[in-house]
Amino acid sequence: MDRLTIALDVMGGDHGPQVVVPAALNFLRATQDVALILVGKEEEITKLIPAGVLGDRLSIRHATQEVAMNELPSKALRQKKDSSMRVAIDLVKSGEAHACVSAGNTGALMATARFVLKTLPNIDRPAIMTSVPSMTGSTHLLDLGANVDCTAQHLFQFAVMGSETVTAVEGLAAPKVGLLNVGAEEIKGNEQVKGAHELLARSSLNYIGYVEGDDIYLGVVDVVVTDGFVGNVALKSSEGLAKMVRHFLTENFNRNWLTRLSALAAMPVLKRFRRKFDPRRYNGASLLGLRGIVIKSHGSADVLAFENAIHIAEKEIHCNIPERIAHRVGGQLDAERQQRPIA
Amino acid sequence: MDRLTIALDVMGGDHGPQVVVPAALNFLRATQDVALILVGKEEEITKLIPAGVLGDRLSIRHATQEVAMNELPSKALRQKKDSSMRVAIDLVKSGEAHACVSAGNTGALMATARFVLKTLPNIDRPAIMTSVPSMTGSTHLLDLGANVDCTAQHLFQFAVMGSETVTAVEGLAAPKVGLLNVGAEEIKGNEQVKGAHELLARSSLNYIGYVEGDDIYLGVVDVVVTDGFVGNVALKSSEGLAKMVRHFLTENFNRNWLTRLSALAAMPVLKRFRRKFDPRRYNGASLLGLRGIVIKSHGSADVLAFENAIHIAEKEIHCNIPERIAHRVGGQLDAERQQRPIA
Repeated sequence: MDRLTIALDVMGGDHGPQVVVPAALNFLRATQDVALILVGKEEEITKLIPAGVLGDRLSIRHATQEVAMNELPSKALRQKKDSSMRVAIDLVKSGEAHACVSAGNTGALMATARFVLKTLPNIDRPAIMTSVPSMTGSTHLLDLGANVDCTAQHLFQFAVMGSETVTAVEGLAAPKVGLLNVGAEEIKGNEQVKGAHELLARSSLNYIGYVEGDDIYLGVVDVVVTDGFVGNVALKSSEGLAKMVRHFLTENFNRNWLTRLSALAAMPVLKRFRRKFDPRRYNGASLLGLRGIVIKSHGSADVLAFENAIHIAEKEIHCNIPERIAHRVGGQLDAERQQRPIA
Repeated sequence: MDRLTIALDVMGGDHGPQVVVPAALNFLRATQDVALILVGKEEEITKLIPAGVLGDRLSIRHATQEVAMNELPSKALRQKKDSSMRVAIDLVKSGEAHACVSAGNTGALMATARFVLKTLPNIDRPAIMTSVPSMTGSTHLLDLGANVDCTAQHLFQFAVMGSETVTAVEGLAAPKVGLLNVGAEEIKGNEQVKGAHELLARSSLNYIGYVEGDDIYLGVVDVVVTDGFVGNVALKSSEGLAKMVRHFLTENFNRNWLTRLSALAAMPVLKRFRRKFDPRRYNGASLLGLRGIVIKSHGSADVLAFENAIHIAEKEIHCNIPERIAHRVGGQLDAERQQRPIA
């Protein structure tokens, strides 16, 4: 392939082709050189594509199966070898695509990507990272649910992967890394967190120490590291709060003609608010630590959100994320190992 | 004491007497029969009280020491036996007060309360619970940081304490209880959470199963149970997001005369927004599972927020929370034990 190519799992997510195909068409219009492969049921996909659009930059790869949103990862892995998700990942493995994007079941996506692509050397477990808005720009948070029980060493690896990715993608020479804890005092936290704190403190990362939940949004650090359980709850609870705030504002500005009029007056600020906190602008989480680029879109993503996830895939291709992490992790972990007595 | 009496740790929190004394005076004006004991440095406190106010309903108990906000709990316990925090808790132990409120260091407060008051029978560890606004009213969340590593049995006890307290305080016959997890599928979650899920499923609680982070705010359940690490991060990250939203709205409505004018027009909605999401209205977390009522105020609480925490203490006295939990936990845990084979 001479052209950057991204495979899209068309059947994944709550809306499948209805969202993925229009997002692909928008993405093609917004970019110049990237090609997309739509993976899924050919008949369903073809119906949604205007005549004359298929060609060099847009092709279809038929896949007969789909992974359900609540399907067990192990079952998806064993019984869905021709699913749109699996075939999209296979295209990355074979080199026909440089990255893939899926809005499907997170557990199945991670299990399949790990099985097909394998993890990088010195990485025990891949992690999921996303960015969220912060007071000073954005913060990257990982892990988001791939790993519910983590050792200190796992957390340390997440920190290295997160830092390296943010360096590449955001152009920050030394991103500030914080370790999520329940308090800033050294006495707090569980054993894994304390162990990771020690590993990070003597690493070459720009580690600034423990941070608390509110620091995710206050812009104190560029990368927040935590285990998948905590990261997932932090992200989801924020999503819930944001949804409640939006719901409240919409409902209250629509109460009567007076409030509707006031909403009109406040429109410039409300629009800016909507844009700043629009979760669609942050859609697209990276599966880091694999020998290939896999981007997870939110299952409920709409066209704009899914298109954003494709742009993230493109950026990670340009930045060579897996190669960069491999390089950094090799170095980091070797340095780390030299400091530890041989067991 | 014939009158309901609440002891206040005057020296605790970021602002000490400057906040606690005015909050106490406001509380006295707002209520009729409750008495307050101000515990702390008499000289500092006296200066803040208008002439003629001290009497039946307001007294001072001198305490020579203070617990610093970052002091180690073990040190506070050993070396600060005449701190305002310790003396306030001692007053609950001796029966001179029915409850105490402190904005001091959470770790020291929990350690001291546990040491002085002791835990209830059948309760392994006390937990911290607060309420947060939700789409349908409010949700109670526990634990918030008292326990960073929890077994299934601990989580189960938290659920029982939370449910019983919400029944008493909110008047709900069978509060809906959810267990915080990373996904609704049974396969997800760590061992402790899966174990607690099984205990809860065969309990007499109105257990509706796993919930995710966003459900805290969507009003799906009345009580959300999790360990202290996850609960603390969920609450703090929400606080951070809320702070960012408020900051954004304030800044953007103050950009120029046009936006300031539009803020004026939108004032009724913005006021309602501010009120609904005012963290001060939710200030006052309960230390549950102790043989006495202890309420933790946010360290940065202002006068309104601290007054709210005193009202929560009053409510818990009226509801006899410790006695109710003791009764319920005895029953619950016994029923639970009968179902388990004797080890």
